[in-house]
Amino acid sequence: MKALVYHGPGKRSWEDKPKPQIQAPTDAIVRITKTTICGTDLHILKGDVASVKGGRVLGHEGVGVVEEVGSAVSGFKARDRVLISCITSCGKCEACKKGMYSHCESGGWILGNTIDGTQAESVRIPYADNSLYGVPKGVDEDALVMLSDIVPTGFECGVHNGQVKPGDKVAIVGAGPLGLAALLTSQFYSPAELILIDLDENRLALAKTFGATATVNSGDGKAVEKVMALTGNKGVDVAIEAVGITGTFDICQDIVTAGGHVANVGVHGKPVSLKLEKLWAHNITLTTRLVDTVTTPMLLKTVIAGKLQPKKLITHQFRLDELMKAYDTFGNAAKEKALKVLLSAG
Amino acid sequence: MKALVYHGPGKRSWEDKPKPQIQAPTDAIVRITKTTICGTDLHILKGDVASVKGGRVLGHEGVGVVEEVGSAVSGFKARDRVLISCITSCGKCEACKKGMYSHCESGGWILGNTIDGTQAESVRIPYADNSLYGVPKGVDEDALVMLSDIVPTGFECGVHNGQVKPGDKVAIVGAGPLGLAALLTSQFYSPAELILIDLDENRLALAKTFGATATVNSGDGKAVEKVMALTGNKGVDVAIEAVGITGTFDICQDIVTAGGHVANVGVHGKPVSLKLEKLWAHNITLTTRLVDTVTTPMLLKTVIAGKLQPKKLITHQFRLDELMKAYDTFGNAAKEKALKVLLSAG
Amino acid sequence: MKALVYHGPGKRSWEDKPKPQIQAPTDAIVRITKTTICGTDLHILKGDVASVKGGRVLGHEGVGVVEEVGSAVSGFKARDRVLISCITSCGKCEACKKGMYSHCESGGWILGNTIDGTQAESVRIPYADNSLYGVPKGVDEDALVMLSDIVPTGFECGVHNGQVKPGDKVAIVGAGPLGLAALLTSQFYSPAELILIDLDENRLALAKTFGATATVNSGDGKAVEKVMALTGNKGVDVAIEAVGITGTFDICQDIVTAGGHVANVGVHGKPVSLKLEKLWAHNITLTTRLVDTVTTPMLLKTVIAGKLQPKKLITHQFRLDELMKAYDTFGNAAKEKALKVLLSAG
Amino acid sequence: MKALVYHGPGKRSWEDKPKPQIQAPTDAIVRITKTTICGTDLHILKGDVASVKGGRVLGHEGVGVVEEVGSAVSGFKARDRVLISCITSCGKCEACKKGMYSHCESGGWILGNTIDGTQAESVRIPYADNSLYGVPKGVDEDALVMLSDIVPTGFECGVHNGQVKPGDKVAIVGAGPLGLAALLTSQFYSPAELILIDLDENRLALAKTFGATATVNSGDGKAVEKVMALTGNKGVDVAIEAVGITGTFDICQDIVTAGGHVANVGVHGKPVSLKLEKLWAHNITLTTRLVDTVTTPMLLKTVIAGKLQPKKLITHQFRLDELMKAYDTFGNAAKEKALKVLLSAG
Repeated sequence: MKALVYHGPGKRSWEDKPKPQIQAPTDAIVRITKTTICGTDLHILKGDVASVKGGRVLGHEGVGVVEEVGSAVSGFKARDRVLISCITSCGKCEACKKGMYSHCESGGWILGNTIDGTQAESVRIPYADNSLYGVPKGVDEDALVMLSDIVPTGFECGVHNGQVKPGDKVAIVGAGPLGLAALLTSQFYSPAELILIDLDENRLALAKTFGATATVNSGDGKAVEKVMALTGNKGVDVAIEAVGITGTFDICQDIVTAGGHVANVGVHGKPVSLKLEKLWAHNITLTTRLVDTVTTPMLLKTVIAGKLQPKKLITHQFRLDELMKAYDTFGNAAKEKALKVLLSAG
Repeated sequence: MKALVYHGPGKRSWEDKPKPQIQAPTDAIVRITKTTICGTDLHILKGDVASVKGGRVLGHEGVGVVEEVGSAVSGFKARDRVLISCITSCGKCEACKKGMYSHCESGGWILGNTIDGTQAESVRIPYADNSLYGVPKGVDEDALVMLSDIVPTGFECGVHNGQVKPGDKVAIVGAGPLGLAALLTSQFYSPAELILIDLDENRLALAKTFGATATVNSGDGKAVEKVMALTGNKGVDVAIEAVGITGTFDICQDIVTAGGHVANVGVHGKPVSLKLEKLWAHNITLTTRLVDTVTTPMLLKTVIAGKLQPKKLITHQFRLDELMKAYDTFGNAAKEKALKVLLSAG
Repeated sequence: MKALVYHGPGKRSWEDKPKPQIQAPTDAIVRITKTTICGTDLHILKGDVASVKGGRVLGHEGVGVVEEVGSAVSGFKARDRVLISCITSCGKCEACKKGMYSHCESGGWILGNTIDGTQAESVRIPYADNSLYGVPKGVDEDALVMLSDIVPTGFECGVHNGQVKPGDKVAIVGAGPLGLAALLTSQFYSPAELILIDLDENRLALAKTFGATATVNSGDGKAVEKVMALTGNKGVDVAIEAVGITGTFDICQDIVTAGGHVANVGVHGKPVSLKLEKLWAHNITLTTRLVDTVTTPMLLKTVIAGKLQPKKLITHQFRLDELMKAYDTFGNAAKEKALKVLLSAG
Repeated sequence: MKALVYHGPGKRSWEDKPKPQIQAPTDAIVRITKTTICGTDLHILKGDVASVKGGRVLGHEGVGVVEEVGSAVSGFKARDRVLISCITSCGKCEACKKGMYSHCESGGWILGNTIDGTQAESVRIPYADNSLYGVPKGVDEDALVMLSDIVPTGFECGVHNGQVKPGDKVAIVGAGPLGLAALLTSQFYSPAELILIDLDENRLALAKTFGATATVNSGDGKAVEKVMALTGNKGVDVAIEAVGITGTFDICQDIVTAGGHVANVGVHGKPVSLKLEKLWAHNITLTTRLVDTVTTPMLLKTVIAGKLQPKKLITHQFRLDELMKAYDTFGNAAKEKALKVLLSAG
């Protein structure tokens, strides 16, 4: 089969690989019909993710059709249409029983990391019963690919951890796919204000069409003052960090109101300075999280019910065999005005 | 009347002050029968607390007898024995209605800060109905003084915010009064392990008698390794920071397990470095809080029921008019083996 | 002044009464600009509410203008526009501190019950600081009258207690004002299905325009079968009882799924039979509640933000001095197709 | 092998049965070292449980040694010592993912019900990875048998659902094994008062030694008055029903305070009358639950830490091959002063 293979920093190719085989009774083999590229894939290509070795098929998102299942798989059979979770869950370790699948003792984020991933014609999915979700009839599969990673990440790490409530003032720092996924799913809870902060006017304009009540361009270094002005100088109940750098984290800690929440979504490469000399007395809650995809069943229900349109995040469409080109586009997101790119087989 | 008065950095005296008077219909005047000294009072004397001006009567803890109440006070009358909360709550602003009395719009921590405090023969208590608690008959008033500040602080900021649960592994960094208050109140929830970390062997020995299941002397810089060894290399479910400096905060962030809680109790004067490059994916919750004393009614019930013995925190007894001497002892806590000092009138 | 006065079962009149006066330093006198009639007022007129004596001015809902405040009122002053809560809260008893204002030791539901109410030109509001809410500029006061009672009741007793979550299946039994208030506020949380059940086709049609995803006419006694059919035979996550009789309670307990919630909103006059022989193993949570109006600040925010349109509940408009006529209309709600009637002064 | 077999109402025998075999890759075969008898087993023998057919090996509690595992079992291997949960969990259905194992689509309570159980020399355990727990070294296995069912039932259905908190007043109706398990585990949360109510003075005396702060003999029909007297006429924060009949449920609904919890543990055979004409305005929460054993890992930790002594529930000891005699004793519990009987192999 064909697959997108990583060959060390800066090197990727669309090449032949042996078709994956069942290795354990809990495995399934899934033929990919839809996949996408994640910001994390770009980090891997930069050589930032040490666990990914040369020769690895990348990708941890996708929708497909089950081709074969191991003897212990009871929830799926050949020809079932399935959503692949970016997080593999064994369903039986201490972490999985707590709903913290990201820290599964034998799973977690392994697809396109320590085992071959979904940017391929087929993929092996360990612990299939706990790591796949049936695609309900009539649901748009393009939209569902967004449920593999980006939407649960924005929701779980940002909105759920941030405890967005009706009437809240919410600020999201970063209007990339993660921030916009948080924006879409924040609206589950009817906040009063949803302020999006970014440097890119194109993305801020998009945020407005996605439900932002206000936008702030942080290019002038005055994001904090602007948010304080928008909130009667009180700050926000929830600040969602969806970038992963010091400057954006600082905005969050400067705009959160007493009693509020800072929910970190961004992937950070360096420590940040936490202003405890002020915050110690500020009654705040700061959360971090690797997505667990424990809310995927709920998110599926909201998509089916039309309460969530994750398809809005897709800006570009490609054929699966155009993965190399799709990487070029996604790797140049600002110029290409790209959010998520969709790859479709056949 | 006599009172302990602050006269700028390093200067305090026990001197005559006019007796406090009712100023608002919601005020009460309370004659102090018991009071104590807080670590914060020492900070004030160092000049670290800018809001405290020269001439201020210090102190925000105490038990006493109501002498007079304003026309709108309905819950108390002259001769009632009362516990004074270190936090003044108006009971009607947005913060108070949320139970966040520390951020009360016209109250919060004001006693011995922006208005005269409890280290005096009498004190004026604003919003008496919401800032005093009736002393039930037969309850030891020495113990109750510990409910003005230290016990609710250890409980609310450490134990409650840290969400200590049955079977949990809990580490408390700092075995001073705050850490020991957290130690006593952690036991409300039956954690499996309660590890106390400090530099002072005397305090660690005391911690053992207060219920610690293990102690770690961090003097050799190996506290993290020791806690990891004690926890099968998993770390703790809850790490409570009860000191307020960089080194102790670092221990907390290094020993917290995935999915765990870091509850800050300590008063910090400087930013800390938060290791988000590791913690972003560690599913942790970090909380800060100025004590709200919203749990005082519950704490009173546990004292009455004999589930909590806050009196254990009292190491030294003085007469009220020995306040100057009591400061000398408390200011030299390590050498004096002092935790809390108790001052009793008459 | 003029007021609507109860004179024993079946007897009411619009008559002269002395203007209310400040009686306690925490009182305010409010000139009524808007009021409405509650189903409870009809119960009073039937003689069902023993606490209401002859001579009482009825009414516990309204919006108005402060005329005068007592000496201990700090949050309001003459000429402030205010929303009156149907529940009076002292802000200082144990119940109020827990947010359970309905069980306030000296307040609770007293307006138009044990003290004179809001269906009058003026009303005395005890504990004004905790029982009034400022009307933000530019907010439609017609809509706000719905926040005195009906909207917080539907929200707190039905939606909040029922713990409606994104993706949930929710059924509301009763499409009167209470059920419709629960319908409007359920949508704060993006449930997947919102099924309204009633006997009145007019109200069911209205429910559809208010956001119901399906309606069931229970006139044929087959509501349970119909709801089970609509939910793939699984039942609903949340069943909200908004009528107050045995038959509607039975529907709720028959349609709730394992692990689900039954939230009682209706006022019941008789015991119901609880099917514990089935439900003991069904992992359900059943809640009851008298509205506390503790969520009024949040509800105000959602109205200001345009997330909630309570004005939809108003079907008829009258002048304040037409109260007798308004009672006739509201007392004949089915025929008049009435939900809430609005009375406006001046 | 030998096993205790049900042969229709009133008929049981200790007889030869074929040794169980692995049937699915997720199965394990466990040699029983310890087992016990549950009140439910007596109900089965009365013919009250229609799902249990003649020829069934009874029993759903036990500790043992793994003899053999299926190919998909990864958490256990031959010779591992294990605790058997009374609830079988597949770990992958919607209910299991929510932690509601009792409603597992292919598991739940099946042992000694729809498949052969643990009152035998060996038993087949489906979904072994999710239905067994490793026995830590050095833990008393007698105590652990109590974790199969009785302790998690008392804890989950009574204490956890009842939300027992520090300082609470708690009443438990029924001082049999269920009620006493609730009594032991309530103490995880340091309630102020723990009132046990029963007809049997022997059990009430035992309750005192288990931590009850007061006991009430309900034989005179005055349990409600007595509890109200013990609670200053306020009632209890949590009322735990641990019997399963109308009279005991009535006590619970009569003694629960406004804002309190009624947690049903008892197995009910008939509907009860719920006094909604009073309770609709009483802000109560009523819960029901079949034990999920989702808290078994936590309970194990508390046993290891010495915070819980479930062995106290064992009043009688037998050899495994004395099961017929053990049933005689347990079936005559009041006269024999029996709580739980322990059967030990070899």
